[in-house]
Amino acid sequence: MADSRQNRHIFVVHGPNLNMLGQREPDHYGHRTLADIDRAIASKATELALQVSTFQSNHEGEIVDALQGAVGRAQGLIINPAAYTHTSVAIRDAVLMLDVPTIEVHLSNIHKRESFRHRSFIADIATGQITGLGASGYLFALEALARMIA
Amino acid sequence: MADSRQNRHIFVVHGPNLNMLGQREPDHYGHRTLADIDRAIASKATELALQVSTFQSNHEGEIVDALQGAVGRAQGLIINPAAYTHTSVAIRDAVLMLDVPTIEVHLSNIHKRESFRHRSFIADIATGQITGLGASGYLFALEALARMIA
Amino acid sequence: MADSRQNRHIFVVHGPNLNMLGQREPDHYGHRTLADIDRAIASKATELALQVSTFQSNHEGEIVDALQGAVGRAQGLIINPAAYTHTSVAIRDAVLMLDVPTIEVHLSNIHKRESFRHRSFIADIATGQITGLGASGYLFALEALARMIA
Amino acid sequence: MADSRQNRHIFVVHGPNLNMLGQREPDHYGHRTLADIDRAIASKATELALQVSTFQSNHEGEIVDALQGAVGRAQGLIINPAAYTHTSVAIRDAVLMLDVPTIEVHLSNIHKRESFRHRSFIADIATGQITGLGASGYLFALEALARMIA
Amino acid sequence: MADSRQNRHIFVVHGPNLNMLGQREPDHYGHRTLADIDRAIASKATELALQVSTFQSNHEGEIVDALQGAVGRAQGLIINPAAYTHTSVAIRDAVLMLDVPTIEVHLSNIHKRESFRHRSFIADIATGQITGLGASGYLFALEALARMIA
Amino acid sequence: MADSRQNRHIFVVHGPNLNMLGQREPDHYGHRTLADIDRAIASKATELALQVSTFQSNHEGEIVDALQGAVGRAQGLIINPAAYTHTSVAIRDAVLMLDVPTIEVHLSNIHKRESFRHRSFIADIATGQITGLGASGYLFALEALARMIA
Amino acid sequence: MADSRQNRHIFVVHGPNLNMLGQREPDHYGHRTLADIDRAIASKATELALQVSTFQSNHEGEIVDALQGAVGRAQGLIINPAAYTHTSVAIRDAVLMLDVPTIEVHLSNIHKRESFRHRSFIADIATGQITGLGASGYLFALEALARMIA
Amino acid sequence: MADSRQNRHIFVVHGPNLNMLGQREPDHYGHRTLADIDRAIASKATELALQVSTFQSNHEGEIVDALQGAVGRAQGLIINPAAYTHTSVAIRDAVLMLDVPTIEVHLSNIHKRESFRHRSFIADIATGQITGLGASGYLFALEALARMIA
Amino acid sequence: MADSRQNRHIFVVHGPNLNMLGQREPDHYGHRTLADIDRAIASKATELALQVSTFQSNHEGEIVDALQGAVGRAQGLIINPAAYTHTSVAIRDAVLMLDVPTIEVHLSNIHKRESFRHRSFIADIATGQITGLGASGYLFALEALARMIA
Amino acid sequence: MADSRQNRHIFVVHGPNLNMLGQREPDHYGHRTLADIDRAIASKATELALQVSTFQSNHEGEIVDALQGAVGRAQGLIINPAAYTHTSVAIRDAVLMLDVPTIEVHLSNIHKRESFRHRSFIADIATGQITGLGASGYLFALEALARMIA
Amino acid sequence: MADSRQNRHIFVVHGPNLNMLGQREPDHYGHRTLADIDRAIASKATELALQVSTFQSNHEGEIVDALQGAVGRAQGLIINPAAYTHTSVAIRDAVLMLDVPTIEVHLSNIHKRESFRHRSFIADIATGQITGLGASGYLFALEALARMIA
Amino acid sequence: MADSRQNRHIFVVHGPNLNMLGQREPDHYGHRTLADIDRAIASKATELALQVSTFQSNHEGEIVDALQGAVGRAQGLIINPAAYTHTSVAIRDAVLMLDVPTIEVHLSNIHKRESFRHRSFIADIATGQITGLGASGYLFALEALARMIA
Repeated sequence: MADSRQNRHIFVVHGPNLNMLGQREPDHYGHRTLADIDRAIASKATELALQVSTFQSNHEGEIVDALQGAVGRAQGLIINPAAYTHTSVAIRDAVLMLDVPTIEVHLSNIHKRESFRHRSFIADIATGQITGLGASGYLFALEALARMIA
Repeated sequence: MADSRQNRHIFVVHGPNLNMLGQREPDHYGHRTLADIDRAIASKATELALQVSTFQSNHEGEIVDALQGAVGRAQGLIINPAAYTHTSVAIRDAVLMLDVPTIEVHLSNIHKRESFRHRSFIADIATGQITGLGASGYLFALEALARMIA
Repeated sequence: MADSRQNRHIFVVHGPNLNMLGQREPDHYGHRTLADIDRAIASKATELALQVSTFQSNHEGEIVDALQGAVGRAQGLIINPAAYTHTSVAIRDAVLMLDVPTIEVHLSNIHKRESFRHRSFIADIATGQITGLGASGYLFALEALARMIA
Repeated sequence: MADSRQNRHIFVVHGPNLNMLGQREPDHYGHRTLADIDRAIASKATELALQVSTFQSNHEGEIVDALQGAVGRAQGLIINPAAYTHTSVAIRDAVLMLDVPTIEVHLSNIHKRESFRHRSFIADIATGQITGLGASGYLFALEALARMIA
Repeated sequence: MADSRQNRHIFVVHGPNLNMLGQREPDHYGHRTLADIDRAIASKATELALQVSTFQSNHEGEIVDALQGAVGRAQGLIINPAAYTHTSVAIRDAVLMLDVPTIEVHLSNIHKRESFRHRSFIADIATGQITGLGASGYLFALEALARMIA
Repeated sequence: MADSRQNRHIFVVHGPNLNMLGQREPDHYGHRTLADIDRAIASKATELALQVSTFQSNHEGEIVDALQGAVGRAQGLIINPAAYTHTSVAIRDAVLMLDVPTIEVHLSNIHKRESFRHRSFIADIATGQITGLGASGYLFALEALARMIA
Repeated sequence: MADSRQNRHIFVVHGPNLNMLGQREPDHYGHRTLADIDRAIASKATELALQVSTFQSNHEGEIVDALQGAVGRAQGLIINPAAYTHTSVAIRDAVLMLDVPTIEVHLSNIHKRESFRHRSFIADIATGQITGLGASGYLFALEALARMIA
Repeated sequence: MADSRQNRHIFVVHGPNLNMLGQREPDHYGHRTLADIDRAIASKATELALQVSTFQSNHEGEIVDALQGAVGRAQGLIINPAAYTHTSVAIRDAVLMLDVPTIEVHLSNIHKRESFRHRSFIADIATGQITGLGASGYLFALEALARMIA
Repeated sequence: MADSRQNRHIFVVHGPNLNMLGQREPDHYGHRTLADIDRAIASKATELALQVSTFQSNHEGEIVDALQGAVGRAQGLIINPAAYTHTSVAIRDAVLMLDVPTIEVHLSNIHKRESFRHRSFIADIATGQITGLGASGYLFALEALARMIA
Repeated sequence: MADSRQNRHIFVVHGPNLNMLGQREPDHYGHRTLADIDRAIASKATELALQVSTFQSNHEGEIVDALQGAVGRAQGLIINPAAYTHTSVAIRDAVLMLDVPTIEVHLSNIHKRESFRHRSFIADIATGQITGLGASGYLFALEALARMIA
Repeated sequence: MADSRQNRHIFVVHGPNLNMLGQREPDHYGHRTLADIDRAIASKATELALQVSTFQSNHEGEIVDALQGAVGRAQGLIINPAAYTHTSVAIRDAVLMLDVPTIEVHLSNIHKRESFRHRSFIADIATGQITGLGASGYLFALEALARMIA
Repeated sequence: MADSRQNRHIFVVHGPNLNMLGQREPDHYGHRTLADIDRAIASKATELALQVSTFQSNHEGEIVDALQGAVGRAQGLIINPAAYTHTSVAIRDAVLMLDVPTIEVHLSNIHKRESFRHRSFIADIATGQITGLGASGYLFALEALARMIA
C-alpha cells in the first residue's frame, strides 16, 4: 500500500511569468515567490503520500515538451498555464495526450480581468478548475487529485 | 480567541435542483445527496472552528431573500447558484450587497457542458471559483474562507 | 390492460401569465381560458385512457418544484413554459431530471414575435415541439405521448 | 355540405431526400417509407372529409413550381421543406404567394441537430410548426387545418 | 371631478433588492430607504389627486402575480424592475397584459454600469423611461402619468 | 452601323416567382404581369436598336444553364435574381463566367423587407443595381447597357 | 441667496430637426413647436429661480461650438441630441469637457424605434436620461438639475 | 396641364466631396464634373417638364437645413448622400420629414467598396435606389419621379 | 480478386459551372476542360482497378437525385460541389444518406477567395478534403479511396 | 534647392475640441494649448525647411472643405481627426482625394479609451499613425513627411 | 536533367505533438509513428527524384527559425502546423517570406473537431490543402509539388 | 548629470522574422536590414545620451525571458512584437511586469493588412504607438522616451 502510494506521481506545470511571482503585480498574483509555492506543494505532497515534480517555463514549446515527457510517468496533472491558458492549442493538445486527471489552477480570478482572459483552452478538457484562491489553489488541487488517483 | 472563532459564520447557498443530488444525473453531479454534502460541510466547519448554515432553494427570489438575511450575520459566502449562475442578475446584486469574501462552487465542470453554461453572473464578483471537483469543492471553499476571514 | 393504462400519467405544465388566457392579448393566445383548455385536456386524456394532472404558476421556482415532484410519478410531460421558455435554465434542468418523453407546446407562433422569443431552453431537450396551433397543440401532444408511452 | 367538404383541398409538400425515408438515417427520420406516410395522410384526410394531394421533390425549383400550381386550388398547406427549410428563400416566397393556412412539419427535432438547422425560412410565415413527432406530425397538421378551413 | 380623481390609481412596483435601499451600495442607489421613497411617492400622489399603491418583491413570480392583480384596477404603472429589467420576459408579458401607460424608473444610470445592464426587456413596451435621477424619478413619473390619464 | 447594332444582344433573366407577377403580392412587385414587362422591354430594345431575349425560371440550375448558354452570345446582362439574389453562389459564378456588363434589377425596395433580403450575392460583381422602381428598372437598365456596349 | 440663484445657469441644447417640431412626424415628437417648448422651459426656469438659455442647430459642429462656449458659464446641461445621439463622438467629447451635471432628454421613446437609435453616445456620460415623456421631459430635467446644483 | 407640370419640383442633393467630381478618383466617380452633371439634370428636367433645383454641400448640417427648406416646395427628392449615406441619421430624419418620393443615387457601385459603405441610412426609407450607373443614375431617377408625381 | 476489384465503384460528382472548365476563369479553375479531367480520372481508375462513373450538373436537385441513385452501388464518393459547397444542405443530406467514404475536392484554393466560400456544408461530414491542387486533386482522391475501400 | 524646399507644403488639420487643449481633460490630451502646439509645429517646420499651415475646426464639413482646398497645394498631410476619426467617412473621402503622404496623429493613446475609439476611418488610408506621444507626435510626423517628400 | 532533379528540394515541417504520433489519440492521427511517415516521405521523394528534409518541433520559434533557414534552399514546402495552424501568425509570416509553393497537410479532418480548429492562418497563403487522408496526405503533397516545381 | 544620463537604459525588442528585414517582403518592411536599423538606433541613442540594448528573437518564450531580464535594468522599452503583437498574452504580461514607459513600433501600417493584424495585445498597455513610418519609428520612439525618462 505504501508502495502504490509512492507510485502516485503528480506533475505540476507553471506557465510564463510565474517565475516572477512575488516580485511584480502582487494585486493579481500575491506576494509569495514561486519557490515558496513549490515548497508548500512539496510539503503537502509528502503529507498526502504523493510524489510531485514541478516545472516552470516561459516557452510554450518547452511546456509541450515537458508534458510529453510526463506521459507514462505522471498519474495526475496540475497546470497553471498563465498567459498560455488563453492562446495555446499546442498545450491543450499535449494535455489531451497526457490523458490523466487534470486540474487547472489560476492564482488570481481571471474573470475580473480583461475579456480575452475569460477564454481557456484548457478548462473544457480539465477535470476541474480552481481560480482566485492564490497558492492554496495548488494545494486543494493536490488533495483533489490524491482522491481521484487513490 | 475561541469566541472570535465562533463568530466566524459562513453562509452556504445551494441553487435550484441541487436538492435532487444523488437521485438524478450522477454523471454531472455525483452520487452523494445534498444531505450528505451538508453533513460533510458541517463536519469540516467544526474542524475549522467555523459556524456554518446551509440553504437550498429552487426559487431565485428566496435565494435573494436569504442572501439579504445574511447581511451583517455572515462573514463569508459559499454559493453554488446552479442554473441561476447563468441567468440571475438579482442574485448577483444580492451577493454584491452582502459584500463578504465569496467562493463560487460548481460540482461539475461547467465548461464541458452547453455553451450557455460558460457564462457566470457571479464569477467576476466572487473571490474565487472551484469547478468540477464534486462535493470536495465546498470543503476547499470552507478552508479558503477560513484563512481569509481569520 | 386497463390497469396499465391507468398508470400512464401525463403532467401538463402551464407557465407564467397563461392563467390570464382568454382575458388579455387574444391575438397571440386566443380567446379560451386556461380552465377551458384544462377541461379539453382532461376530456382528451379520458378518451386516450391517460391520467393527467395540470399545473400553472407564474413562479419559476414553483415550476421547478412541481417538475421535481413529478419524478417517478409522471410518464410523460407537456410543457408550455411561456416566458420562461426563453430565460430559464432552472426549468431546463428540472425537465432533464424528470427524464420522460416531453413535448413543448406554444399557443402562438413564437417565430412571428420578438427575436428573443426565438430561443428556447427546452426545444433541444424535448422530444418534439408544437407551436401556433392554439389549444389544439396540447391535445395533439397528448395523442403523441399516448403512443410513445403505450 | 358534402360539396363544401370536397372543396377543402390540402396540399402536402415533402422536401429533398424525404423520398429516401425508411431506408436511411432512421435515427433522425424513423423507419416508415414516404409511401407509408402518404397512405396514412390519405386515410386521415378521408376521415376528416378533406381532399389531399402530396408532392415530393429533391429540386427547389420544382417545389416552387408545385406551390405556384396550387394557387387557387389548395385551401391549406402542409410543408416539410427538409433541407430547404434552412436555405430556400424561393420556397418562402412561393408559400407567401400561395397565402393559405400553412403548417410546417419536421419528422425529427431539428433543435437537436446542427445549428444551421435551427434557422427556418418558413417558420415565421407559417401558421404553426410541429417538430419531432415523426409521421404523426402530418396527421396532427391535417386535423389542425381541417378546423381552420372548416 | 373629485370622484374621477379618486379613480385614477397608479401601481408602483419595486424590483429585487430595492428593499435594501439606503443600507447598501449608496453609490448606485442613494441613501434613502425604500420607506422614505414610498412616503415621498404617497405625498406627491396626494398632491396630484392620484391613488397609489406600492409593491416590492425579490421574487419574479410575485411581481408577475401583482401585475396581474392590478389588471382592471390600475390606470397607470411605474415600475423599477431592478435586476429583472435585464432578465425577465415574464414581467414583460405581465406588463403587456396590464396594458396601461407605463413608466420605467431606475435610480442609478444603468448605462454607466456593466453592459448586461444596458438591455431592458421593459423599455420598448413602456411609454417612457427615467434613469439616474434617484428617487425623484418616481415623482416625475407620477406627474407624467397624472397628465396622461387625466 | 445598323449591323453592329443588331449584334448588340442583351440577355434578361427573371428569377423565381416572377412568373406570378401581377397575380400576387402587388405591394412588393406591382400589378403588371411578366408578359407586360417583357413587352415593354422588347419595345424599349427596339427603340434602342438592341436585341433582347428574356428568360424566367424558378430553378436555380436552369438559370445557371441559361447564363452559360449566353456566353459568347450576349453583350450585356440584366438580371433580377429574385429570391436567388440572397442564396445562390451558383448564379453568381455563372454571372462571373459570362463576364459582360451586368445590371441587377429589383422591382421592390429590398432594403424595406426582411434583413436576409439585404444581402446580395450579385451586387458586388454587377456594374450597377436598380431597386424599387418597378418595371421601369428594367428599361433604365437597358438604356444604361445600350451606352456601355455601344 | 437670490444672487446665488441667479448664478445658476442651465444650458439647453436641441439637436437636428427639432426645429421642425410640431410640423412633421407628430407620432414620434408630438404636436408642440420648439418655440412652445422653449417657452415652457423658460417659464419653469423662472419658477425654479434658474437662468436658462436654449440653443438649436442642425449642425454637429455648431453644437460642439455652443457646448464649448458654455464652459465656465453653465452649471448644468439639458441635451436632446436627436439624431446626433447615435452618431456623434464630437458632441460626447464636448459634453465631457463641459463637465457639469447633464440630463439627456428624448421626446419619444427611442427604444421603440430602429435598432440604431438604441445606442447613445451620451447616456453613459450623462447624470440621467428621460425618454418618451414629450416636452415634460425637459421640465423634469430642469427640476432635477435645480436640486443638484442648488 | 402645363401649369401642373410647372408645379412639379424635384430637389436634387449632392453630398460631400461630390463637388470634386471629375478632378479626383475617376475610377469610382467618373470624369464628368458636378457642373456637367447638373447641366444634364437640368436638360432632362426640361424635357420631362419638371422644375429642378440642385444643391451640394460638404456639411451634414447644411444638407439637413436644405432638406427642411424643401418641405412644402419639393414634390420629389433625388439624393446622393455620398459619405453621409453611411453615417448620417440626421439626414435620414430630414428625408423622413420631407416625406416625398425619394430616389437614392450613387455614381459608383458601393457594394464593390469597403464594407462600411454597404450600409445606407437612406436605402430603407427611399422609394428606390440606383447605384453604379454614373451620372445616368440621376437622369433615370428624374424619369422615375416624373411618373410617380405625374 | 479481379471480381472484388470490379465491385469497387467510385462515384464522382462535379457541381455547377464546372462544365465550363477550361473556358472561363482559368485563374481559379485551370485550363483543362471537364472532359480532360474525366479522362484523367478514368485512366487513373483503370490503373487502380476501380470502377468510376462521373456526373456533372448545374442543378442542386439533380445532384441530390444522382447521389440517391448511387446508394447501394457506389463504395466511395468524390465530390466537388463547387458553389453548392457553401449553400446546399440538401446535398449534405444526400451525402449523409449515401454513407460511404467521401473526399471533397476543390480545384482552386477556396480560402483565397471571398469569405462566403470559406464555409463548407460538406467538409465536416467528408473523410477528407483536397483543395487548390487542380485536377490532380481528383486523382489523389481516387488513390486515397482505393486504399480505404480495398 | 532653397526653392524646392519652399514648395514643400504640409497641411496640419486639428479636429473637434482640440481648440480646448490645455483647458480641459489634461489626463487625455496634456496641458499645452493648441497655440503652443502650433508654435512648436511652425518652429520645427522652419528647422526642416518646410512650409506649414494649420487648421482647426469643430465642423466635419469645414474640415472636408479645408482638405479639398489643399488639393494641389499641400504635398503632405498631418491629421488629428479627434472624434471624427471614429465617425467620419466624409473626411476619409477628402483625404483619399487629397492623395498625399498622410500621417494620423493622436495626442493620447486611443487604445486605452472606450472601444468605439479603437476604430479609425483614417488609419488604413494613412501612411502611418502616431498615438499617445502628446504634442511630440506632430513633430515626429513633420520629420517623417520631410523625408518622404524630399 | 538528373542534375536539375537533384536540385529540387522540398522542406517538410511537422508541428507540435506530431512527434507523439502512433502513441496517443489514434482516432485523430492514426497509428503510424512520425518515423514511419518520414520513411514513407523519403521513399516517395526518391521515387519522384526530389530531395527532401523533414523537421519537427514543439516550439513555434524553432519552426520559424527552420523556415527562415530554408530560404534559398527549398523549392517547395509541405507543412502540417498542427496546433500552430490555428494560433501562429509568426509561422504564417515565415511561410510568406519563404515564398515557395506550399501545401498544408492535416492528418485528421480538422472540420470535424472543435470550432477553433476550423481557422487556419496558413490556408489562404498556401497553394493547396489536404486534410483527413492520414499520412497519404504528405505523399500526395510531394507528388503535387513535384509537378509544380518541375 | 552626465551620470544620470548614462543610467538611462532603453531596451529595444524586435519580434519574429524581423531578422529577415531587407531580404524579404520589402513592400511591408522596407529594404534596410535589422543590423542597419540597430546601427541607426545606437547612433541616435548616443546623440540622446541614452544607453540602449537591442534584442531579436523568433521565440515568444525568449522574448518573455528577455523582458524579465530587463526588470530593474531598463528605464524604457521600445517593442516591435511583429507577429506576436496579435497573438501573445505572455509578452503582454511580461511588458506589464517590466512596468516602464513603452512604445510599440511597427515598420509597416498594420491597418492596411489582414484584419487579424488590427488587434494588438500591446497597444492598450503601451504609452504610445508608431506605425507605418519604417525604421524612423524606432528613432522617434527613442526621442520620445528620452523626454519621458529625463
